[in-house]
Amino acid sequence: MSWDCPLPLTGSERIQMAHGSGGRQMNQLIETVFRSVFETEQTVAADAAVLTLPSDRIAVSTDSFVIQPLFFPGGDIGSLAVHGTVNDLLMRGAIPHRLTASFILEESLAIATLNTLVQSMASAAQAAGVQICAGDTKVVERGKADGLYITTTGIGWLPPDRQIGPQQIQVGDAIVINGDLGRHGIAVMACREGLELELPFASDVASLRSPVLGLLEAGIDLHCLRDLTRGGLASALNELAAVGVGMDIEAKAIPVDPAVAGVCEILGLDPLQVANEGRFVAFLPTDQVAIALQILRQIWPEQEPRCIGIVQSATPGLVRLRQPFGSDRLLEMLSGEQLPRIC
Amino acid sequence: MSWDCPLPLTGSERIQMAHGSGGRQMNQLIETVFRSVFETEQTVAADAAVLTLPSDRIAVSTDSFVIQPLFFPGGDIGSLAVHGTVNDLLMRGAIPHRLTASFILEESLAIATLNTLVQSMASAAQAAGVQICAGDTKVVERGKADGLYITTTGIGWLPPDRQIGPQQIQVGDAIVINGDLGRHGIAVMACREGLELELPFASDVASLRSPVLGLLEAGIDLHCLRDLTRGGLASALNELAAVGVGMDIEAKAIPVDPAVAGVCEILGLDPLQVANEGRFVAFLPTDQVAIALQILRQIWPEQEPRCIGIVQSATPGLVRLRQPFGSDRLLEMLSGEQLPRIC
Repeated sequence: MSWDCPLPLTGSERIQMAHGSGGRQMNQLIETVFRSVFETEQTVAADAAVLTLPSDRIAVSTDSFVIQPLFFPGGDIGSLAVHGTVNDLLMRGAIPHRLTASFILEESLAIATLNTLVQSMASAAQAAGVQICAGDTKVVERGKADGLYITTTGIGWLPPDRQIGPQQIQVGDAIVINGDLGRHGIAVMACREGLELELPFASDVASLRSPVLGLLEAGIDLHCLRDLTRGGLASALNELAAVGVGMDIEAKAIPVDPAVAGVCEILGLDPLQVANEGRFVAFLPTDQVAIALQILRQIWPEQEPRCIGIVQSATPGLVRLRQPFGSDRLLEMLSGEQLPRIC
Repeated sequence: MSWDCPLPLTGSERIQMAHGSGGRQMNQLIETVFRSVFETEQTVAADAAVLTLPSDRIAVSTDSFVIQPLFFPGGDIGSLAVHGTVNDLLMRGAIPHRLTASFILEESLAIATLNTLVQSMASAAQAAGVQICAGDTKVVERGKADGLYITTTGIGWLPPDRQIGPQQIQVGDAIVINGDLGRHGIAVMACREGLELELPFASDVASLRSPVLGLLEAGIDLHCLRDLTRGGLASALNELAAVGVGMDIEAKAIPVDPAVAGVCEILGLDPLQVANEGRFVAFLPTDQVAIALQILRQIWPEQEPRCIGIVQSATPGLVRLRQPFGSDRLLEMLSGEQLPRIC
């Protein structure tokens, strides 16, 4: 005769409401899942992390990540939550320094899944050169929060004379991108539609630390940088044109993987409106384009950086797209929505 | 004959998935709801805010807010999201400086509700002495996110010699609280249970800027501060005792509003484990207790600050509660959960 538990517990550890109550279970969760992976400076929990920065001039950015599915070809919500926010700091020319991470967990999320994502965040943070210095966890009822949502805030520091931003764009600036467009959005959408096994490409999610700091260290006079996330190249250029400049873009200069272009055609999407997570546009003097492209190619040899156009004064606020057969059309911001959620 | 629309649109403006797509609708939402209320420094959206701080020594804290219901007696999720994070900065003795706010919005949330909450955040930010410098919005499907979740990250700066934290607690320190306990958690729970009309009290949610900076400016030698949020006084003291000290607490010194105590009894809760959002515990030399209490009373005349106990070396890691009739028991951390979500 033997005693068996009719409900085996092995491998069934899941998030419960008590993990968000501020008491014993939450403390255990923080100790076992988060602190062992993230903590670097503090051994006793404090209300806020105290840091000394290399400069009193800082850049700050925040983003919430609500992507479905949590895992996709090339990445997951954890790596995305690190790269997405750190890349925003780099877009101001800031040196990434610290990250905070706040988790909204759905009751019933497997703790093994959370562990995998936390490890993925730790790897991404190392690649991006940031330490995770503060965090928070909340738990919401089953059926909310799609497993989990993550919000990250990044803090970087700036050398005293660095001025990179939309206001620094000048008429005559060259417009450069660091690689092909559309892979992140299409990888996530295809994955959600169950097509992932047939895809010959993965998301472009990556840290932009090396290419951006590489350009800066080589002395390239970057006027403005913008990563091409939600809304893609089209929304980014239109937002920047709002400072009062026009842009002329050459459609055939923009690399799009043929497989990405194919899925876009099937789904009725414009690849220039699709989200990327490892691509940016840089505005710089035309006489520095050749050396900038050379630097970008050296850092990411698998990518094709390109000069795609120029800033002009003829159509302030508008982006003209020269199409392969020579006609022009306005490149418009994404209107409406692109399901599923891709960031 | 007249033409009528069978689906009147007046007053029915609600969040749609397209508000999170990174395109035109999101830009409109940001312009009309957020930028007009929050924006102070930048007129063109950039990936990250650039700031110059008064010091290179900073405090950083982050929190997600998932409270149900969104509005409760004494406050709402917006004021809570500001005060909760700013108060964490103050608990390190930092001067609050900037706040980021990230919103996860549920499809179908009324834009009028969002407007009300954003206005509430703006008022709270003014009271707390911070500016909101960066933000993000995401939209998730109907049925997720309980209307909205808000994540805030606060940045404060520290004078070079300020050391306030768990490691600074000393044996012999007096333990002081700034007012009565349990009002926030009970106000939210009662509201959720539909009892709000009968409640003679509201949440204590408030900025702790004035009392904390008031004590510091008066030269009080604060060793450690901790706000008494999730898990209440019991969890806070147990977390701090983990640095290796014991504490003796006098139960009858702890003020609890009789109405709060009554609801606690009905719901089977210990008011010392209930969340507060405007209460903190301070560790300081016993010879400064009288002046500290006097300062706290001057700043918040409606509150009763109290010395509730002392740090000792006899029971390291443990908190002893002396009960009204003289017996001792261990004050334990909250175990399990207190529904509903109160922060």
